Amino acid sequence: MKTYLDCIPCFFKQALEAARMVTNDKEKQHEILNRVARELPRFSLNGAPAEIGSVVYKIVHEITGDSDPYKKVKEKYNRIALSLYPKLKQEIERSTDRLLTAVRIAIAGNIIDFVVGAKFDVEKELQKTLTCKFAIFDYEDFKKLAEQAENILYLADNAGETVFDRVLIEELDKKVTYAVKEAPIINDATIEDAKFCRIDKIAKVISNGSDAPGTILSLCSKEFLTYYNQADLIISKGQGNYETLSEEKRPIFFLLKAKCPIIAQDIGVPEGSIILMKGH
Amino acid sequence: MKTYLDCIPCFFKQALEAARMVTNDKEKQHEILNRVARELPRFSLNGAPAEIGSVVYKIVHEITGDSDPYKKVKEKYNRIALSLYPKLKQEIERSTDRLLTAVRIAIAGNIIDFVVGAKFDVEKELQKTLTCKFAIFDYEDFKKLAEQAENILYLADNAGETVFDRVLIEELDKKVTYAVKEAPIINDATIEDAKFCRIDKIAKVISNGSDAPGTILSLCSKEFLTYYNQADLIISKGQGNYETLSEEKRPIFFLLKAKCPIIAQDIGVPEGSIILMKGH
Repeated sequence: MKTYLDCIPCFFKQALEAARMVTNDKEKQHEILNRVARELPRFSLNGAPAEIGSVVYKIVHEITGDSDPYKKVKEKYNRIALSLYPKLKQEIERSTDRLLTAVRIAIAGNIIDFVVGAKFDVEKELQKTLTCKFAIFDYEDFKKLAEQAENILYLADNAGETVFDRVLIEELDKKVTYAVKEAPIINDATIEDAKFCRIDKIAKVISNGSDAPGTILSLCSKEFLTYYNQADLIISKGQGNYETLSEEKRPIFFLLKAKCPIIAQDIGVPEGSIILMKGH
Repeated sequence: MKTYLDCIPCFFKQALEAARMVTNDKEKQHEILNRVARELPRFSLNGAPAEIGSVVYKIVHEITGDSDPYKKVKEKYNRIALSLYPKLKQEIERSTDRLLTAVRIAIAGNIIDFVVGAKFDVEKELQKTLTCKFAIFDYEDFKKLAEQAENILYLADNAGETVFDRVLIEELDKKVTYAVKEAPIINDATIEDAKFCRIDKIAKVISNGSDAPGTILSLCSKEFLTYYNQADLIISKGQGNYETLSEEKRPIFFLLKAKCPIIAQDIGVPEGSIILMKGH
């Protein structure tokens, strides 16, 4: 997905939100916005929004000296999500289609996204996502490939969400590689978050070698790219991964909730929709 | 009112909206946003948002060569508003407090604001504004001053809204000077709009000498400042005039609907509130 002009005001909104996470110093917050303003005209809109987003968050880090503004929030949501794990497993146990319920749970985990900023109630959102209609539902294809696949690459999204991913990985019951970020970026999961949620007990956890949001292949490590090219199923979680991989020709399935109006428009679904979509 | 950091993302949103009003050329729209990005760091936040807003709209004009992107929209709403005039007068006739109803009508006219961008239904909004509770209601002071005043200066806001202002001016039944913009800026009323709505039949219509949004005194003409300094009541319509005059020590009453969350916060009222507020 390319960057839309509508993303530009949003980069400033995101920069301000991140700045406020780290510092109360209004001068510094203003300096961050001014630096974003000076950097922005250098970028074309041909890349994914996440590519510019990555620059925005780097500016926040540089000016505040805080390379992990979302650390506390991530820890909090890791804990909340982990406490929900038994409940998530119960939902699987009482469901008639375990894999589908696990997919719904994995998407529900995608609500843990502080960038979008809205307050939310995890349990309420979970119940909604367990029952609501998919706007795109390539489930039969997904199920078939999930059964056949030998090497599944699972692209993580946010911290906390990892617990919900764990439930899906357990249902897949295959050799899964779980790829997270090399270093903190926004609230994206890192190896630390994956381990906290004990994904390392059921999957091989690797870093994608990059600290950009989403999966910008040109910034990923060779090791990651080997997994990426060899996987016979890639499960891509969340908006950032969609933005950066939507045009890729690999066996990718995008699992996400379209929280951003522009991403929803790019996919062609109403804002707030849940999606299980086969890539190109 | 000073500029808040939250206004910065909004300047880009406004620039994009204005750009889209004038051109479908995405390159030009992008150029506008880039130019705004380059200009923005030059400004302090000590001025009102309208001061930076004025630069933003100048950039749109310069790059597109269109000095009046809202021309058609203004003409349309002038016509719609004028067709409502008999209905507005009926509301006055059947009210128990004519002046208060006229104040409510003038505020209802303030919904005609395309910058904020939301779709709206003029008649529905009118009915709501005729009955809803004021968040700030300095009506007794306003009524007293309106009765005593000999020279009233009425600061116009948007085109179309002028018809609603006309109803209040008719109820005031005093010597009123109606100040509009020197040249088109956003959807603000100009002399042409005032005349279209026939304000010139009941008040002296003048330009404030500036084409900035709101009333930036340092940019206004000497003629306007004479009226401003001699008026014994100043009626200030809308958010732009509030932004630029909120700290002034003159007998100003602010009539507006707080459509912007940041302005609502600055005033200390919930977003969407209607206000009749005495200045300092």
